[in-house]
Amino acid sequence: MAASSSLTLSQALLGRAIIAHHGSTAHTDRLALPGFNLSTISGRALKSSASAPRKRPVLRSAARAAAVETLEKTETALIENSVNTIRFLAIDAVEKANSGHPGLPMGCAPMGHILYDEIMRYNPKNPYWFNRDRFVLSAGHGCMLQYALLHLAGYDSVKEEDLKQFRQWGSRTPGHPENFETPGVEVTTGPLGQGIANAVGLALAEKHLAARFNKPDNEIVDHYTYAILGDGCQMEGIANEACSLAGHWGLGKLIAFYDDNHISIDGDTEIAFTESVDTRFEGLGWHVIWVKNGNTGYDEIRAAIKEAKAVTDKPTLIKVTTTIGFGSPNKANSYSVHGSALGAKEVEATRKNLGWPYEPFHVPDDVKKHWSRHVSEGAALEAEWNAKFLEYEKKYKEEAQELKSIITGEFPAGWEKALPTYTPESPADATRNLSQQCLNALAKVLPGLLGGSADLASSNMTLLKMFGDFQKNTPEERNVRFGVREHGMGAICNGIALHTPGLIPYCATFFVFTDYMRPAMRISALCEAGVIYVMTHDSIGLGEDGPTHQPIEHLASFRAMPNILMLRPADGNETAGAYKVAVLNRKRPSVLALSRQKLQQLPGTSIEGVEKGGYTISDNSSGNKPDVILIGTGSELEIAAKAADELRKEGKAVRVVSFVSWELFDEQSDEYKESVLPAAVTNRVSIEAGATFGWQKIVGSKGKAIGIDRFGASAPAGKIYKEYGITAEAVVAAAKSFS
Amino acid sequence: MAASSSLTLSQALLGRAIIAHHGSTAHTDRLALPGFNLSTISGRALKSSASAPRKRPVLRSAARAAAVETLEKTETALIENSVNTIRFLAIDAVEKANSGHPGLPMGCAPMGHILYDEIMRYNPKNPYWFNRDRFVLSAGHGCMLQYALLHLAGYDSVKEEDLKQFRQWGSRTPGHPENFETPGVEVTTGPLGQGIANAVGLALAEKHLAARFNKPDNEIVDHYTYAILGDGCQMEGIANEACSLAGHWGLGKLIAFYDDNHISIDGDTEIAFTESVDTRFEGLGWHVIWVKNGNTGYDEIRAAIKEAKAVTDKPTLIKVTTTIGFGSPNKANSYSVHGSALGAKEVEATRKNLGWPYEPFHVPDDVKKHWSRHVSEGAALEAEWNAKFLEYEKKYKEEAQELKSIITGEFPAGWEKALPTYTPESPADATRNLSQQCLNALAKVLPGLLGGSADLASSNMTLLKMFGDFQKNTPEERNVRFGVREHGMGAICNGIALHTPGLIPYCATFFVFTDYMRPAMRISALCEAGVIYVMTHDSIGLGEDGPTHQPIEHLASFRAMPNILMLRPADGNETAGAYKVAVLNRKRPSVLALSRQKLQQLPGTSIEGVEKGGYTISDNSSGNKPDVILIGTGSELEIAAKAADELRKEGKAVRVVSFVSWELFDEQSDEYKESVLPAAVTNRVSIEAGATFGWQKIVGSKGKAIGIDRFGASAPAGKIYKEYGITAEAVVAAAKSFS
Repeated sequence: MAASSSLTLSQALLGRAIIAHHGSTAHTDRLALPGFNLSTISGRALKSSASAPRKRPVLRSAARAAAVETLEKTETALIENSVNTIRFLAIDAVEKANSGHPGLPMGCAPMGHILYDEIMRYNPKNPYWFNRDRFVLSAGHGCMLQYALLHLAGYDSVKEEDLKQFRQWGSRTPGHPENFETPGVEVTTGPLGQGIANAVGLALAEKHLAARFNKPDNEIVDHYTYAILGDGCQMEGIANEACSLAGHWGLGKLIAFYDDNHISIDGDTEIAFTESVDTRFEGLGWHVIWVKNGNTGYDEIRAAIKEAKAVTDKPTLIKVTTTIGFGSPNKANSYSVHGSALGAKEVEATRKNLGWPYEPFHVPDDVKKHWSRHVSEGAALEAEWNAKFLEYEKKYKEEAQELKSIITGEFPAGWEKALPTYTPESPADATRNLSQQCLNALAKVLPGLLGGSADLASSNMTLLKMFGDFQKNTPEERNVRFGVREHGMGAICNGIALHTPGLIPYCATFFVFTDYMRPAMRISALCEAGVIYVMTHDSIGLGEDGPTHQPIEHLASFRAMPNILMLRPADGNETAGAYKVAVLNRKRPSVLALSRQKLQQLPGTSIEGVEKGGYTISDNSSGNKPDVILIGTGSELEIAAKAADELRKEGKAVRVVSFVSWELFDEQSDEYKESVLPAAVTNRVSIEAGATFGWQKIVGSKGKAIGIDRFGASAPAGKIYKEYGITAEAVVAAAKSFS
Repeated sequence: MAASSSLTLSQALLGRAIIAHHGSTAHTDRLALPGFNLSTISGRALKSSASAPRKRPVLRSAARAAAVETLEKTETALIENSVNTIRFLAIDAVEKANSGHPGLPMGCAPMGHILYDEIMRYNPKNPYWFNRDRFVLSAGHGCMLQYALLHLAGYDSVKEEDLKQFRQWGSRTPGHPENFETPGVEVTTGPLGQGIANAVGLALAEKHLAARFNKPDNEIVDHYTYAILGDGCQMEGIANEACSLAGHWGLGKLIAFYDDNHISIDGDTEIAFTESVDTRFEGLGWHVIWVKNGNTGYDEIRAAIKEAKAVTDKPTLIKVTTTIGFGSPNKANSYSVHGSALGAKEVEATRKNLGWPYEPFHVPDDVKKHWSRHVSEGAALEAEWNAKFLEYEKKYKEEAQELKSIITGEFPAGWEKALPTYTPESPADATRNLSQQCLNALAKVLPGLLGGSADLASSNMTLLKMFGDFQKNTPEERNVRFGVREHGMGAICNGIALHTPGLIPYCATFFVFTDYMRPAMRISALCEAGVIYVMTHDSIGLGEDGPTHQPIEHLASFRAMPNILMLRPADGNETAGAYKVAVLNRKRPSVLALSRQKLQQLPGTSIEGVEKGGYTISDNSSGNKPDVILIGTGSELEIAAKAADELRKEGKAVRVVSFVSWELFDEQSDEYKESVLPAAVTNRVSIEAGATFGWQKIVGSKGKAIGIDRFGASAPAGKIYKEYGITAEAVVAAAKSFS
């Protein structure tokens, strides 16, 4: 079957991605995981489905009718069994690992069961089917809930042996949900509040794509985004930021369950969390429903979801009051069940209490049988959608092609030719402005490029001039207005990036405010979300705003972070190169540090050079033996070039190296590295308007690093550069100091 | 007078602090700025005030009566003049600098006038008077509002020439409010949301000290905390976190003005911010008042403040609807007036529009005269309080001594002897547990130590066992429950630290989640707030929680940050040493990275060693010529020690160096550094379970750095250490690889 061959491909790719992830950050060209295999909607496979046009509609309605029928016939006992299966899979896995969080799965098993068994539309044999409903466990510590559900639903990623390997080396069931380890997990959660913000991004992506591509006769994009968040997520500021935006955007297909269990690690939430969450969410523009009995009130939960779906212009928060560790006679409703194994004795007591006679990890036959239908139903759902896509493609050829490009992440051939290039005669300009030229050029050729700024669009220069604003009533547009919500912005972009391989989210603020969004950026790096971070005002060069706004240690802090590209282009060609790299790296985020101030277009810079991370832009030496090597990045490269001119006037053989991305340079061959920074040449001077921390690796023990190891100051930029000694004179003096 | 001599001392000290700040981060022992000079409440000065007991009460009531009378007589015209003076000082300063934010001061001048002229109790000639009302401009970009007010009120820090030097090199009027540059500015703001969270910390400090020290007959601690925040602050998650806590704690003396002007940088707030702030704050447990006319509704503003003061069990948000850039005929109510000079033509038009005939920077005589009373009134307020303190001291000797210690930051002699020490025979333990021993030992001798965790007290081991919880009804206690709000926690601690020199706030979470609070930590470093960051679970050694919870790049990221101490102790003695350093550094925050896992108590470790940052813990070489130097930090120091044992068995001369704090080592003499890391010995191996980034500086071009340059994994800790090669075998192999 096409679906299963798609799956096979997906999994093969996933396997490679995981190896690369754990093996080394040097593997940047990991393959995309397509939402569907093109063979399933074109060519032979398409023909075969097209040749059975009647069969699929039959399957479709049959599947739906069967689902309804099954649901109606399901007895309470069976549901209870299923719910307890979820509970005990969590209990048993945590017990075996002697590590983990049983409390949430025990309390949230009812809503989990209803979501995965009754509500959500997915295909367990192709976790990457494009039009699936998305589920995010924002309270990621409760991941055994999701693993149990994926297991019951028939995902190949979570077999019984995977459950038994919970939290062990090399397993597919790590201690928090990781999309890059476990197909079926959409995003990486655990750090609280990230997941709900990812969910806002997923729902944004759906709303945007639906508005762009749906037709009155064919709603080709149409899914819900569900999330479960706990008290911890609710306390985190990022959740408020993202939920404020979700309300503003009217993301009606976002349905979040708030596991209201009144317990956090330190005890009753009374000690630190007494706000009215309901009132706050009403203030944020959400529809709020309260399910008072989340432990056994199945019909209440079902009714709430129905009500939520009926409200199409607002996201819905379903507050579900539950008992953490439900079923544990001595530990339920206490913090002790949150994050530790119950212990053999209490597991035994819980088995008795819930009437569960089975061995660990056992799934009763009736439960197994009940859930087994999801494999065929899921295949039917995907096949039905594939047929729908075929119809769409016939009628709306251009749109289908664009949508296909977004779904697969295969960009139009030659897209990179759209990038602007510059000559030394091109006017001096700030790299933030050059960045805007790149963004606007790319938006014309990359259908999945969208993004915006945290209320600094006019400073970050991130507006796409040919598009309007993504807003509640204009969701087809591509300029996203995030407000002053950097942290939410980053996590929303992670959600957008992980929704579909061809969506390329970018977001922007001042470089110093990466601090505000650092947790989301770290998760971009970890979860392989190719977000483009457009970070302007990247040094003391921003001037008068002063030290609160001037980044110092930020370049170093990202160079130290795994799997993220820190790029600091020096002029137009390098900015274009940085964008080429950023677009190509779909499994690794890129941070572009850009200047507020005007910079010269330098001779010798190139897109190709940027792709190598470090390269020579000028050299009057021969035999790879310069007297001195001057190394600069970004706005200081022109200072290095100026210093070289002066030194050359005095007869020195000087090489100037642009070191735009340390990570990319690290990935080059030893031969290449030697050709740029020959080991024998220890007379090296680096200059960068940031912390010198880390530069010793590049300049060596005998070299000199010129930088700034204190906070900035409020004054005109030129004055600060001079007072802080970030000058060509300082470079010349350092170069001459080598004896 | 005592007050003026106190001021002189304060300013002299401040001058030194500022020089140190701009000169180098190496100056760690900057002197504290006392809230009052001890000479004013003890010794000769005290006697003189005691000898005139009648005079002060007379002054007190006279000053109050005069204030009321003056207020009543003040004509609307005079107030309008004063408010326009504030507006034009802002306009003129921004115009002269051709840089800055005139919009907010023009819109907020009325509330600013009422606060500083009618409401707040302060002494302009001693900005550090302990019992002053605190004011925080959370919307820090509008700092010209505060500079204008400090100028009118008679603060020596903002003279006319300072206003003319706005945003210039070396001025006391930088681009955002900086407490370390401008006496009268309480905290450092600009990064949005930080200020309101600082204000929550200031109000917490007041509530705590009042509860501990006030007596029915003598309310010695008694002031309000005021803040102005804008739309930007409201959007930031940190503001929601801190305000949720303020509501939970019932901080009735916190009064925040929300400058509701509907404009942010990108335009009308309609594009990204349509939530109901009122409803949200009601949900957070605040009292909410709406002043509909913030432009000219002086009586409305006054009535709102009166109402706010009457609500004593809740903080109050006064939403003040204003017009940004009020008075500018062509730019008011638009984003163009937010962050740029008006331009000569529009300044002229605004002068005409508001009927302002004066030269730039002119303060009309009636306004000058009207504000001039604050100097004498402020002196009277402080004198009155000093007398009150005398009475307090007579009656409550012990409490007075404790309060004095908190106010001055002079700790009881020999406090550091309370720190525990350990021998190699002491039981192995996790440094997070050893940290708790230190905290509990210190809490007995340091009256200003208070703090807590972001819902991880039982993991971070931060509870002070002899105290209860700081809560709404038990504010005298010292265990603060922050909930899962790391960012708010950090900024609240900044507020506590800056309230009074002797308050020593500590706060805790997992080390990886420093990412969540990094902006607040950076401001700790910048604003010289000696917060102690207790960061446990500091590596892959935390095990099964996996890569979302395992710090990698975090040590490097703080080592690169100016003016912050990154400490990673290896055992009990080093943990005690880290606390000694942290307590002594009242003008520089400390980050303690602590292990989850048990560690051996190592021979050779010491408190004195930690104070030097890096030191030899064992050595079998002679003549300062070891064959190899092994360098470790924290949990890897025992691995280095083990590797040394093995190498020594094979006859090698091996030195083991603990590198607990790079910053402290950097500050040692060259002789000392050479004695630990002799330049001639290039065979060096470092081992640390974190990024190797930066280690090249320590091990040199020929050395080897063993570390982790990828993300962690979910598995038992020992397994990850082995798989990642963080082992004694790896150290031995590296040491042997030197030819």
